[in-house]
Amino acid sequence: MATTTDLYPSRKSEPDEFFPRRDPTVYGTPDDGPLEQEQLDRYRRDGFLFFPGFFSGNELGQYRKELSRLCCDPDMAGREEVITEPDGEEVRSIFRVHHHSQLFDELSRHPRVLPMAEQLLGSPVYLHQSRINYKPGFKGKGFNWHSDFETWHAEDGMPAMRAVSCSVILTDNDMYNGPLMLIPGSHRYFIPCAGPTPDNHYRQSLRVQKLGVPDTDSLAHMIESGGIESAIGPAGSLLLFECNLLHGSNANMSPTPRSNAFFVYNSVFNTPDRPFGARHRRPGFLSNNESFAPLKTARAKHRTDLARETDSALRPA
Amino acid sequence: MATTTDLYPSRKSEPDEFFPRRDPTVYGTPDDGPLEQEQLDRYRRDGFLFFPGFFSGNELGQYRKELSRLCCDPDMAGREEVITEPDGEEVRSIFRVHHHSQLFDELSRHPRVLPMAEQLLGSPVYLHQSRINYKPGFKGKGFNWHSDFETWHAEDGMPAMRAVSCSVILTDNDMYNGPLMLIPGSHRYFIPCAGPTPDNHYRQSLRVQKLGVPDTDSLAHMIESGGIESAIGPAGSLLLFECNLLHGSNANMSPTPRSNAFFVYNSVFNTPDRPFGARHRRPGFLSNNESFAPLKTARAKHRTDLARETDSALRPA
Repeated sequence: MATTTDLYPSRKSEPDEFFPRRDPTVYGTPDDGPLEQEQLDRYRRDGFLFFPGFFSGNELGQYRKELSRLCCDPDMAGREEVITEPDGEEVRSIFRVHHHSQLFDELSRHPRVLPMAEQLLGSPVYLHQSRINYKPGFKGKGFNWHSDFETWHAEDGMPAMRAVSCSVILTDNDMYNGPLMLIPGSHRYFIPCAGPTPDNHYRQSLRVQKLGVPDTDSLAHMIESGGIESAIGPAGSLLLFECNLLHGSNANMSPTPRSNAFFVYNSVFNTPDRPFGARHRRPGFLSNNESFAPLKTARAKHRTDLARETDSALRPA
Repeated sequence: MATTTDLYPSRKSEPDEFFPRRDPTVYGTPDDGPLEQEQLDRYRRDGFLFFPGFFSGNELGQYRKELSRLCCDPDMAGREEVITEPDGEEVRSIFRVHHHSQLFDELSRHPRVLPMAEQLLGSPVYLHQSRINYKPGFKGKGFNWHSDFETWHAEDGMPAMRAVSCSVILTDNDMYNGPLMLIPGSHRYFIPCAGPTPDNHYRQSLRVQKLGVPDTDSLAHMIESGGIESAIGPAGSLLLFECNLLHGSNANMSPTPRSNAFFVYNSVFNTPDRPFGARHRRPGFLSNNESFAPLKTARAKHRTDLARETDSALRPA
């Protein structure tokens, strides 16, 4: 998609008022995929859908094992894709995880997940970003309220709001281990963030974000009108949330990590060009610039095994 | 009280295992005050008592007004008692608040509060410390898990565990504005903290505490055995918690402040002498070294007014 019009100006020197989004929230219809009208309506209103216990059993176990493996993988140490906590050496996130793990590549193209993303965006999709977040026990710090789209637009050049994030929760989430918090309905407004973007801003912002953060008056307005909800649920729960939905999290006060796998689906009709609010685009591990080819549903070997398991689980004992 | 024996060694260069407390938790009996046997038993087991909506109406309104007044008082600006947030100029806490406010002085000697402290400690009490915490909306940061007694013992010289903290919650507390979190039962063990105390450590620790923080293995053990509870309730709620109970809090993710008044009652038989784990005692605004005289129940004018109000509220309309 070639565009020169900046629909969502941000990172100007002067602060600006928030305004209603200029794109649809839901691009598809109930005929386009597994989500029903009621779910599409809820997503349009709230900006997210939460599915407690979406994955379970062996399948979930495999993802959890892979998560632990990657964190200790000596091949990963020192890579730019590996982000540590702001005041320590604990691994906070690993990016481009669909390149580093066949299993997470398959998860990103899971036949129960990918069609929902395609339906919400009304088109084929590709991965703009993938990562796993660890949030280690006691050490995992929080994130201030922010819209991902603001950054993807200003720093990556994503033109329109036609992307959806998918978080697969791989550890039980409760109110003490720093679950994702969401401001329902906030995706319906764009809050321009003041201040020009310094070069290589991502090196700072992935640890503690200070720029690209909405002003407190706008935030207060969004919370007064929509409240706050937490994505709390058992390991295996799945959260789909709109790219412009305000979200944040608190520190992990519990002994155990709060980990998830995170995939950002962008419409193939919404590929980034030049950033709208920065001099250079962020590197490829944050903002895919390698392939905009539509994702294809995974049909890997382990998926066949899983189908067999599910099948036998359904048979009377 | 004169003592030379260090019952709770801490701040040594090598880490040490936690061990059971060497003092009683409850010093008084049901005959000594308003708390009943069941409440004393619960305090002994959990290390805290929570009273939702303990204060209300005009009385609560007065405390809230006084809280706002002090925060903006130009006489307070620049005083050492005023602590700001770690990365900003917002007021985080004001210490020695019973010196700066007649109303909070009276609250600290409130006839419904003071007798509970005296009963729990089985003796007359004096104020070891008083403060108000603001925790401003969006800007208020959290506190890592810690025992207050560990600091009061190591840095102030408080000999034994015979003190109780009283938090009067002056704004509604919910899970999003950084309420106090407690680890029930953790007061029954002392966790020595490794590392010698630098001089003037309090200047750092009141903003972000890094020393005097328990090791993660001990913390994990305490949480696995006792869980985590949050002091969530309406403005006017009151929390009494034992001086060695592990507690912490998360950042305030909401637009509104989470404020409270905080009084530390220490037994007059437990007055501090020289610090057990630091070269110098902390200044008087943190660790009262002016007067160990027993507190007397407040009988001020506004208390009479309040009694009258309560009285008329009880009369049939």
